[in-house]
Amino acid sequence: MKNSSRGVVDPFIVMDVMEEARQAEEAGRSIIHMEVGQPSTAAPESARAALAEAMERDPLGYSVALGLPELRARVAQHYADKHEVQIDPSRVVITPGSSGAFILAFTALFDAGAKVGVGEPGYPSYRQILKALDVTPVGLQTSAENRFQPVSSDFAELALDGLLVASPANPSGTMLCRAAMRELIDACNAQGISFISDEIYQGIEYEGKAVSALELSDDVYVINSFSKYFSMTGWRVGWMVVPQEHVRLIERLAQNMFICAPHASQIAALAAMDCNEELEGNLEVYRKNRELMIEGLPKAGLSNFAPPDGAFYIYVDVSHVTNDSRALASEILAEVGVAVTPGLDFDPIRGGQTLRLSYARATGEIEEGLRRLQRFFER
Amino acid sequence: MKNSSRGVVDPFIVMDVMEEARQAEEAGRSIIHMEVGQPSTAAPESARAALAEAMERDPLGYSVALGLPELRARVAQHYADKHEVQIDPSRVVITPGSSGAFILAFTALFDAGAKVGVGEPGYPSYRQILKALDVTPVGLQTSAENRFQPVSSDFAELALDGLLVASPANPSGTMLCRAAMRELIDACNAQGISFISDEIYQGIEYEGKAVSALELSDDVYVINSFSKYFSMTGWRVGWMVVPQEHVRLIERLAQNMFICAPHASQIAALAAMDCNEELEGNLEVYRKNRELMIEGLPKAGLSNFAPPDGAFYIYVDVSHVTNDSRALASEILAEVGVAVTPGLDFDPIRGGQTLRLSYARATGEIEEGLRRLQRFFER
Repeated sequence: MKNSSRGVVDPFIVMDVMEEARQAEEAGRSIIHMEVGQPSTAAPESARAALAEAMERDPLGYSVALGLPELRARVAQHYADKHEVQIDPSRVVITPGSSGAFILAFTALFDAGAKVGVGEPGYPSYRQILKALDVTPVGLQTSAENRFQPVSSDFAELALDGLLVASPANPSGTMLCRAAMRELIDACNAQGISFISDEIYQGIEYEGKAVSALELSDDVYVINSFSKYFSMTGWRVGWMVVPQEHVRLIERLAQNMFICAPHASQIAALAAMDCNEELEGNLEVYRKNRELMIEGLPKAGLSNFAPPDGAFYIYVDVSHVTNDSRALASEILAEVGVAVTPGLDFDPIRGGQTLRLSYARATGEIEEGLRRLQRFFER
Repeated sequence: MKNSSRGVVDPFIVMDVMEEARQAEEAGRSIIHMEVGQPSTAAPESARAALAEAMERDPLGYSVALGLPELRARVAQHYADKHEVQIDPSRVVITPGSSGAFILAFTALFDAGAKVGVGEPGYPSYRQILKALDVTPVGLQTSAENRFQPVSSDFAELALDGLLVASPANPSGTMLCRAAMRELIDACNAQGISFISDEIYQGIEYEGKAVSALELSDDVYVINSFSKYFSMTGWRVGWMVVPQEHVRLIERLAQNMFICAPHASQIAALAAMDCNEELEGNLEVYRKNRELMIEGLPKAGLSNFAPPDGAFYIYVDVSHVTNDSRALASEILAEVGVAVTPGLDFDPIRGGQTLRLSYARATGEIEEGLRRLQRFFER
């Protein structure tokens, strides 16, 4: 059977590392996982309890397409509590993870052939989902001076139809401050560019508070998720806030493309939003791990990295040792048993000289990983 | 913010009926739900128990993109058990519902502008998902002689890129017999048309056994789901079997577009596959309801309907009373409190003269619904 051309998307390069790691573990070796993009913690205890209880009294059939009304209201409340901004619950769309939100946003906003700017380094699936939907991703090479975030001069001449930013960002962990976010939104407004803000790492912040694009404008798409701060990756539930006049459009697309987000996950997510204590406990682990990384990486000669304002990644420059981050990742795994992600997954142009290190796992594992990295880079 | 043109898809006409029904119930009226497309039963008890247990010992993070290996193996076993066909588990892809499977299949197989044939009457989301992905749905007007299923002469001159069939079908409940399925697959092979078989209602069969396209060819996409027979609509988990040479293609798309199907739902689905007794009990209810419908509808003057081989719908001709099924559905609801789906949702051309009646609910509700329909049509 013939396949389409748009369906041929790039593999994640880290998958090779993960397969090597799996084989090594199967052979009995100890492997430290700094390649992972998810918490090792489960969904909060009360979230699981809420689901266990609901399973006994409700058939958990389809929810309405935009999500359980009480969850939509609770998400709106979250913006009042955390960002001091009033969002009408009708603008909140519960989605099958942020993945589902991207598919909805891209099909709602862009026709085939449209051009959408994405910062590089950035989450690789942005590019691949856009491509699969026949939209052209336009990589914007960001700079260390701009904290690896795009600025309006990066796309002034590109006639974009959309701009997608992330704050905190993956892999860099950097955030857009209020002024930087405003500069981008203003430039997009002036040029008729649809502005999409990926805020899935919000809540995992260390130095300052992340700014939501909703604090600055109602005419934006904001995407978030229960995966990271709420520690619910495998549950595939997220949300999106859209302009009021786009709600019906998104509702029809969601009815047809997804029917609804998983009902069980919506029940658990609603309860998770009131599990502050447990979630702040998880955050304390990331905070501790981050400090260990900031302190320990320079001892391995890795002192050039983006400021990790949020998320649980450090994006390090390894240009002093290689132009081939893929081979380096493979060597690190083979020699000292640490799995890391080659920068090429995030930046096809300059990513040969970078690695992404995750500190989402338990602190003991991070300490051991740092010891091993120091040993590796000492050679 | 501007929206795309492809993102503007049609609403479900039944939504208006459902909203009217909701308001009537809120006002205290008794409403019989014959518009629903899902079982009223919960996921099997052992499935829920398996999840409750797993939640306590496993963080349920992302699964690998193609799904839990044990679930893929179990689905392959299902084809050996039920269809006497050997499927390599590597060809089984666990998806976020059949909805996710459609998105994966359509992007993997069709570029923008491709033409895909869909039988009319048919599931409305086929058309809308195709449109949202910039693929052109080509409605094939089926006939009662062909049991409301397409035949190869319907598309001989259309230069299709794909053909999508459903057996048992929604809304008609008819099945493709082996010869009819073979005729379609052969015609598609001869013309280089990708063949996709939607088999999500398989298992809910009354007169004969449904044929899977996998019994006839490996060069097909087969889509199925845990929603209907396994009574897990809200869990958003389904599967797809693809040709061996498409597995890597689908894996990369799934990694990027969905990351994985909900992990919790995969755990529950695996256990559900061994809940025969409970599921056959659900089926007995549908069987009883179907008999009541076949016997009771003619008493309401509704004797012209497609042979309901499977699923839990009856698609009835109401051309003797109306050309406007939407208005008729609204009248039936207002006068006797039965919610039904106007045929226009399934067939934009002839659906003004048809209704879809679901018999998925409890038998008592079906009996009362039939009494009310008899009362309505007596006038």
